[in-house]
Amino acid sequence: MIFLTPGPVQTRPETRAAMAVDIAPWDRDFGPEYAAIRDRVRDIAGGVPGVHATLPLQGAGHFLVEAAIRTFVAPGGRILVPSNGTYADRMMRLAREAGREAVALPVPDTRGVRAEEVAAALAADETISHVCMVYSETGSGIVNDPAAVGAAVRAAGRRLILDAVSAFGALPFDLKAQPECDAVLFTSNKCLEGMPGIGFAVCPMDRARAQAGQAGSWCFDLGDVLKHAERQGWGSFRFTPPVQALHAFAVALDLYEAEGGRTARLARYAENMRVLRAGAEAMGLVPYLDAEHQGPIILTLHQPETPGFTLQGFVDALKRRGVLISNFFTTPTPTIRIGCIGAVTADDMRAALRAMEEALAELGAARQAA
Amino acid sequence: MIFLTPGPVQTRPETRAAMAVDIAPWDRDFGPEYAAIRDRVRDIAGGVPGVHATLPLQGAGHFLVEAAIRTFVAPGGRILVPSNGTYADRMMRLAREAGREAVALPVPDTRGVRAEEVAAALAADETISHVCMVYSETGSGIVNDPAAVGAAVRAAGRRLILDAVSAFGALPFDLKAQPECDAVLFTSNKCLEGMPGIGFAVCPMDRARAQAGQAGSWCFDLGDVLKHAERQGWGSFRFTPPVQALHAFAVALDLYEAEGGRTARLARYAENMRVLRAGAEAMGLVPYLDAEHQGPIILTLHQPETPGFTLQGFVDALKRRGVLISNFFTTPTPTIRIGCIGAVTADDMRAALRAMEEALAELGAARQAA
Repeated sequence: MIFLTPGPVQTRPETRAAMAVDIAPWDRDFGPEYAAIRDRVRDIAGGVPGVHATLPLQGAGHFLVEAAIRTFVAPGGRILVPSNGTYADRMMRLAREAGREAVALPVPDTRGVRAEEVAAALAADETISHVCMVYSETGSGIVNDPAAVGAAVRAAGRRLILDAVSAFGALPFDLKAQPECDAVLFTSNKCLEGMPGIGFAVCPMDRARAQAGQAGSWCFDLGDVLKHAERQGWGSFRFTPPVQALHAFAVALDLYEAEGGRTARLARYAENMRVLRAGAEAMGLVPYLDAEHQGPIILTLHQPETPGFTLQGFVDALKRRGVLISNFFTTPTPTIRIGCIGAVTADDMRAALRAMEEALAELGAARQAA
Repeated sequence: MIFLTPGPVQTRPETRAAMAVDIAPWDRDFGPEYAAIRDRVRDIAGGVPGVHATLPLQGAGHFLVEAAIRTFVAPGGRILVPSNGTYADRMMRLAREAGREAVALPVPDTRGVRAEEVAAALAADETISHVCMVYSETGSGIVNDPAAVGAAVRAAGRRLILDAVSAFGALPFDLKAQPECDAVLFTSNKCLEGMPGIGFAVCPMDRARAQAGQAGSWCFDLGDVLKHAERQGWGSFRFTPPVQALHAFAVALDLYEAEGGRTARLARYAENMRVLRAGAEAMGLVPYLDAEHQGPIILTLHQPETPGFTLQGFVDALKRRGVLISNFFTTPTPTIRIGCIGAVTADDMRAALRAMEEALAELGAARQAA
């Protein structure tokens, strides 16, 4: 089976195999491995030893987003969220339920937010302390630009929280060049090609230390995660971690480095996207995004309007051919969502395209636009 | 290596092997497996179909405790916590940071709380809505009695939240006989012998439905977990789960049923404890608890006072002999903590006792009390 999903992604056999082991998280043999993961992740984020720290959190990416907002935004504080996809909407809900006020900056889901839009919104409302932005939206596949938006945030004297869940490790980010950034957030199971269960915030340590205690949640206080590590040692976990997922993540990081790190990974994903998008268009499918706005993570296609087509029918027909894609969409209009990330190559994309052509033919939906 | 830890515990090879696989959580093949896990767990809790539901939550047991308090105790509400161990103290901190008020009912950590103590505390303070109690404290090994305490809570017209993390699946609990109980909480990686990463609350559905929206946290709103399941289907997960841990948990439940369920598991653990405690006493080690208060989950022993003994030295000497125990303690005085749970038998306990005898001799700490 080839997984072409926005994550959990297809992993390498070596990564998966590392899950099948009992480990005591507090064992002295595991501590150094865990401490090394924190250092390696900080380095990928462009963090600086002694200045930035990796703060891990058990659970899903949503947990990490709520934790970052609670930790860095004061109770009752106001955040600006460029809204061009589902994960931005979810960020706003997470903030509101946590007692922070979320102000939407509406943006079409077919392009990234512009730095000048963010600058204008911040200029118009001095009560906003943070911009909380999604790097890569897995609904439409759109990508926002944290370097450009971050510069506007910095110029306005505000702070940035970046949900980089589906981008981190492939799309560029350099924390040391973005001093306005309180946290860059991501999970183990996207572009770093690990198994799900654990997420990470990379943060300036002085900020995390200063904000400890205001989260209104012990579990979601990233400042307390830092304080625990400083008190107990960097190999110590606050609460029981999904230790197998961490152990497998160390293997995934080995494979990441062996591949050539971020630029090599992005190049593979970009080639996956190039092959997939061209092939999909050749069979008459219409991308949701213009080519100039297409990110390398997710290809979103309009569903064919032919009567034989249903998304679940298409997903099932692909699955019978060894290709697994999402069976739901989050765009306003019906779409098909195909991931270009994970341990997959351009050859896998070509195989997927053959399966797609056959699946459309089976559904009587082939070449609707051709 | 034999793990004699309070969890994550030693697992069976079949359970571990089930981790080494890629699964898309929303895949139609996985949905029924996940839905069945929820039903099986509800049944183990003594829940009734259509009345009680299993509400899973990603992450550690602490997350589940915070979520249950947020969901069922109103903001600013007051809880009573029988305090005879570390996890009770942690429960109070979780409640306080979440904006609920925690009232401690101090109890020595060498016995369970008495139902009449709880009744008296509730009679003295009518502003307390909930008793939040730890079933089995992994610090001292003490066990509280949820049936007896629950009756007192019920008689007082209050509600119970039970942290059964290290007890569930072995010690008895029958939710349908305890209508005062809002939630019984536990994780995959203790007496059910699964892998860590996921926890469960079993709750009355009408209560969870009625309380949805007051948690002050989208992630930790168990009412929203229920509403999602009712809206999207019981095989649907709200946010990305640690899907391998769930898949392995289904195998662990198969093994649980094959062993004979709760009574068989408790009998094995009780025999583990009997062998371990008798053997430890025979080599001069002194249990922290009197025999009449000894629970079957954890044996806690006073550290020998001989000069050669250090806990880490003892742990390391045992590890060289293939036995892994905790390298920390949470009792007020220095102790050694040995788990009797997990996929281990009385023969493993006998092997561990031989290793302990050798380790003490190596440290020059043998037969201090003999």
